[in-house]
Amino acid sequence: MLSEMRVTGSRCRCLLLAVSLPVSISLCRAQSPQETDSAMENIVTEKKAEESHRQDSADLLIFIMLLTLTILTIWLFKHRRFRFLHETGLAMIYGLIVGVILRYGVHVPRDVSNVTMSCHVNASPATLLVNVSNRFYEYTLKGEIRGDDVQDNEMLRKVTFDPEVFFNILLPPIIFHAGYSLKRRHFFRNMGSILAYAFMGTVVSCFFIGLLMYGCVVLMKYLQQLDGEFFFTDCLFFGAIVSATDPVTVLAIFNELQVDVDLYALLFGESVLNDAVHASYVLPIVLYMPKGDNSHTFEVMAMLKSFGVFLGVFSGSFALGVVTGVVTALISFFTKLRDFQLLETALFFLMSWSTFLLAEACGFTGVVAVLFCGITQAHYTFNNLSPESQDRTKQLFELLNFLAENFIFSYMGLTLFTFHSHVFNPMFIVGAFIAVFLGRAANIYPLSFLLNLGRRNKIRSNFQHMMMFAGLRGAMTFALAIRDTATYARQMMFSTTLLIVFFTVWVCGGGTTQMLSCQRIRVGVDSDQDNSVSIMDGTERRSTKQESAWLFRIWYNFDHNYLKPILTHSGPPLTATLPPCCGPLARFLTSPQAFENEGPLKDDDSDLILTDGEINLSYGDITVSTDATGAHSAFPSAGGAGAATSDDLDKELAYGDHELVMRGTRLVLPMDDSEPSITELQPHIRM
Amino acid sequence: MLSEMRVTGSRCRCLLLAVSLPVSISLCRAQSPQETDSAMENIVTEKKAEESHRQDSADLLIFIMLLTLTILTIWLFKHRRFRFLHETGLAMIYGLIVGVILRYGVHVPRDVSNVTMSCHVNASPATLLVNVSNRFYEYTLKGEIRGDDVQDNEMLRKVTFDPEVFFNILLPPIIFHAGYSLKRRHFFRNMGSILAYAFMGTVVSCFFIGLLMYGCVVLMKYLQQLDGEFFFTDCLFFGAIVSATDPVTVLAIFNELQVDVDLYALLFGESVLNDAVHASYVLPIVLYMPKGDNSHTFEVMAMLKSFGVFLGVFSGSFALGVVTGVVTALISFFTKLRDFQLLETALFFLMSWSTFLLAEACGFTGVVAVLFCGITQAHYTFNNLSPESQDRTKQLFELLNFLAENFIFSYMGLTLFTFHSHVFNPMFIVGAFIAVFLGRAANIYPLSFLLNLGRRNKIRSNFQHMMMFAGLRGAMTFALAIRDTATYARQMMFSTTLLIVFFTVWVCGGGTTQMLSCQRIRVGVDSDQDNSVSIMDGTERRSTKQESAWLFRIWYNFDHNYLKPILTHSGPPLTATLPPCCGPLARFLTSPQAFENEGPLKDDDSDLILTDGEINLSYGDITVSTDATGAHSAFPSAGGAGAATSDDLDKELAYGDHELVMRGTRLVLPMDDSEPSITELQPHIRM
Repeated sequence: MLSEMRVTGSRCRCLLLAVSLPVSISLCRAQSPQETDSAMENIVTEKKAEESHRQDSADLLIFIMLLTLTILTIWLFKHRRFRFLHETGLAMIYGLIVGVILRYGVHVPRDVSNVTMSCHVNASPATLLVNVSNRFYEYTLKGEIRGDDVQDNEMLRKVTFDPEVFFNILLPPIIFHAGYSLKRRHFFRNMGSILAYAFMGTVVSCFFIGLLMYGCVVLMKYLQQLDGEFFFTDCLFFGAIVSATDPVTVLAIFNELQVDVDLYALLFGESVLNDAVHASYVLPIVLYMPKGDNSHTFEVMAMLKSFGVFLGVFSGSFALGVVTGVVTALISFFTKLRDFQLLETALFFLMSWSTFLLAEACGFTGVVAVLFCGITQAHYTFNNLSPESQDRTKQLFELLNFLAENFIFSYMGLTLFTFHSHVFNPMFIVGAFIAVFLGRAANIYPLSFLLNLGRRNKIRSNFQHMMMFAGLRGAMTFALAIRDTATYARQMMFSTTLLIVFFTVWVCGGGTTQMLSCQRIRVGVDSDQDNSVSIMDGTERRSTKQESAWLFRIWYNFDHNYLKPILTHSGPPLTATLPPCCGPLARFLTSPQAFENEGPLKDDDSDLILTDGEINLSYGDITVSTDATGAHSAFPSAGGAGAATSDDLDKELAYGDHELVMRGTRLVLPMDDSEPSITELQPHIRM
Repeated sequence: MLSEMRVTGSRCRCLLLAVSLPVSISLCRAQSPQETDSAMENIVTEKKAEESHRQDSADLLIFIMLLTLTILTIWLFKHRRFRFLHETGLAMIYGLIVGVILRYGVHVPRDVSNVTMSCHVNASPATLLVNVSNRFYEYTLKGEIRGDDVQDNEMLRKVTFDPEVFFNILLPPIIFHAGYSLKRRHFFRNMGSILAYAFMGTVVSCFFIGLLMYGCVVLMKYLQQLDGEFFFTDCLFFGAIVSATDPVTVLAIFNELQVDVDLYALLFGESVLNDAVHASYVLPIVLYMPKGDNSHTFEVMAMLKSFGVFLGVFSGSFALGVVTGVVTALISFFTKLRDFQLLETALFFLMSWSTFLLAEACGFTGVVAVLFCGITQAHYTFNNLSPESQDRTKQLFELLNFLAENFIFSYMGLTLFTFHSHVFNPMFIVGAFIAVFLGRAANIYPLSFLLNLGRRNKIRSNFQHMMMFAGLRGAMTFALAIRDTATYARQMMFSTTLLIVFFTVWVCGGGTTQMLSCQRIRVGVDSDQDNSVSIMDGTERRSTKQESAWLFRIWYNFDHNYLKPILTHSGPPLTATLPPCCGPLARFLTSPQAFENEGPLKDDDSDLILTDGEINLSYGDITVSTDATGAHSAFPSAGGAGAATSDDLDKELAYGDHELVMRGTRLVLPMDDSEPSITELQPHIRM
């Protein structure tokens, strides 16, 4: 990260001297020859650096203008209720247009200043010191350039970002935002299914696509359609990168149309966890790769090692993310930073960023750490923030997410024309599309069938079709694909991946509304109303309880009774949840505000905390008394403690996602429009 | 800018392979020798890149931790009402500590991977292609390294940022925030004085310091205290960089103690405009430099050319900033982006950023463009934003400003120990401190005397002493000084500048409260109350009118009557301000909301707009009627039109800074404290 920042300067060091060039040269004449030489040389170098800096600014300006254009057009679309194209799809179209212009309209020949040196060095170190007449210049490695690329269009090279930018700069805010804005209530209600789709589904999809593609590749080799090597592990790698779903377009429309919350939770949860799985998942495949020849044989040891690495990296990143989140929660718990919102927001931002850096510095996956940090921050730290900071942090990451996402998608469009070594192989592309389609089917339908065996609230077939349809590919897939485009196989994969992303975002994304009405999925569901129904209705409540896995409920109780009181200002006081013998410790650890929580439900906290009512409901069979803010009244519990806790769980989850914004844009519908209400689109079908 | 982003990757390309290294190597054994070689080489390169990426992450983590520590400590200070140390001063102290640790505690010898190549090339191009056994690697120039530096501590080099980072990444948000949060009411009331201090004062100070330092240098040369060349232009350059004031510490305390608003406006306005002057001011001095020998003679032609360049760059940047601001205002005026706050905020952010890039791409000074863009955005665009976006944009730039500022100050502390070629010359340092002191005095006192000749509301001597005392040096001075540390003279200047910044921030910043009470400057002034007093009091109102320069008043009327209605949803409808013959045009250009403004004062717009009452007061002698929202009632004007307009000006300015936040942190005083009110610190002295 530092290196990026360090590099600009050399290019733009002497912006100052740019305008002065003609003057300086004429002034130099009076001086001694060697001084003039040195000055001239400096000036020429500086002029080049200055031009380079200007060029860089202009290039970045292209992207800023692209984003501005996207924003204005998408406003127009939203204003006119035109729902076929999401902002990300639009960003891609604009990117495509600019890509065409850069490719065919502008031609800047390669700068002659690129001196090619044929030195006898055996390695390509990260840093190079070049001795030019006893002055040392430091160079940093930018990357390898293929032979034909050396004569390439300078302009196209200029607008090419380093692939790692996506992984290290643009992806983290997107992933953090996803974690921070997880709709927790329905997420937790469907946690088992979501985990199944995200972990097992991804593995199934990955291997399924990998195997299909391997068949395709073998066929291509037989038909001599292949110009380079394509190993089995490459197929597996391809399966891994195109298995990551990113239904940002679909979710935006779901949110706008208020589609069934469980379907929303399933899709969103799957895509969020997917990202984490993929970020650490690709590693073991790469690990497995050096051994990879084009044979079909599995190496058991290599497989096990790969799996071990995956587990290690994933759990390490997970732990790091959670720990940073908890540390932030503790800091905001023990200090009264609430009084200074700016400090609070800054601390929150810095701690979240440091998670990423810490994970990268430790050799874990920053993206995964950032995701779980986001979830932890939303679960604990969020409760300790002042209402103003809650808004600030949400809005900040919403903005960062929006900018990063649209930047990536517009870059995707651009890169279709500006990327220097595309390999479009029709047969591979057709094979890939079929494999992606079948892979998604092999993920969704069998898993849903298995899950339905255990679920009371079944995932109905129209939901399954919708999930099948909503398997869009997006930012993560692109970031994984562009990360390494060194070999022929990788280039073909990258080109094909681009087309898959385009197709899914435009066609599947654009057809979401049609698909919803075709599958007769109810829209216009108010998530609160839905909740109140389930609370009113006894049998439905029971079924909700059944859905929550026992493991999750144990964790929930522990979290609610001990972690939340220790880490946040919300939750029941520890004096109520710890055994009486731990009284002094409990009183020491409980924040004074936790006792204050025992008033009526406060609006600003209603997001995530429980009020006294529920606390007493949960622990009604324990006689509670505290000295701090007066006596607790101990109602006899309505049911047993266990049942009450489940109610509690249900209620807390109901409040949980009250205010958190969704991933992607919040689509505010202008109210001054006389268009028929969107709920009339389809007859409501009560689940 | 692009290049920064492009560079990371090469370093961290193969994060993926890091963990897999031992495994991969063992797996490679089975393959053919040349394949193994190639794979081994790749792995070694990738391992280096990976290590480098990890190291970069760890280095950046140091700064994040520094900032986190600063935030926590400053919270403690604010909580305990400890006012001697501002967060910037604290950031410097922590930076110093970490610098000492890195310097003396950690020793990482230079990586052996840095191959020094002695090739016969005559230039150091920005991009280098290295041919390693027919594979081309692209390298980018990072900068020159001095001979002794090659053996330098790797760790110290790692934490050294490119100087241009400060100018191109960290300074823009600080400057934009300053422009965006300008307290416009008192700024405009004192505009003449502020312009005088910022432009004339800076020139006076620059030349005064330059001449004094030249005397010092001549003396040093005589005493053989000088180890290198030091030209007259170097002295001028030094004068220029240490003339930029940045009283962020003082202003934070002023804001907290609610010090007299005029004094606040004078100091803040001066420092804001100062920055702009300096950013484009240093250029002509550099321009003048190549001719510069150590003689005292002025070259008239070079001087004129320099002045021309200064004017060109300044006015070009100014125009660019204003134009982008106006374009943003027009976009938000003609679209209904208000309905989608996220899009609105994103657009605002992107347009403001593009100002910087556009200016840099055109060869102007981005920092100057950004400042005037900020002022224009605050004046026009802000009115068109939805209330939510107004908050969002303010908070976003407040946060960016906070982070950037503290980063710069902590880096300052760090660099005192980690910078590789400090030149501390006691005589030069003493001379510089005296020169800076005298230069500030030569700026403030004579100018105040001259200004007082024209001002009704005199700048009293205690105000002058306070301004003299508050001439802190900060971020801009540092960014200018670190930008070029190539020569002996520049290194000496840089080291001395660091000491000056430390001294002024710690001593002058820390002594602000003492100085305020010593100079008997009244504190606890409510700016609204102050205004209502001046509105009540007839004679005081007259004096305010006198203060506003005639030029400013002409501009104000034009702005209020024509620009504001055209560019924003606020202000009087054009139908009221244009002559009746332009009726249709006026009706076409006026936004429907402008007519709606004629209701009672709305809270969300009260910042910056006038209500109908004032409009009728201003144009009472013109009979106004519009069809859109009903008839205007035309009151006979209380005074003449001119006098009424002045009232109007006064009132609008009074509302102007109602909500805008100040530069630096907003210091919220916890209310639950029983400490004696801060207003009792000093007896109030009515001006």
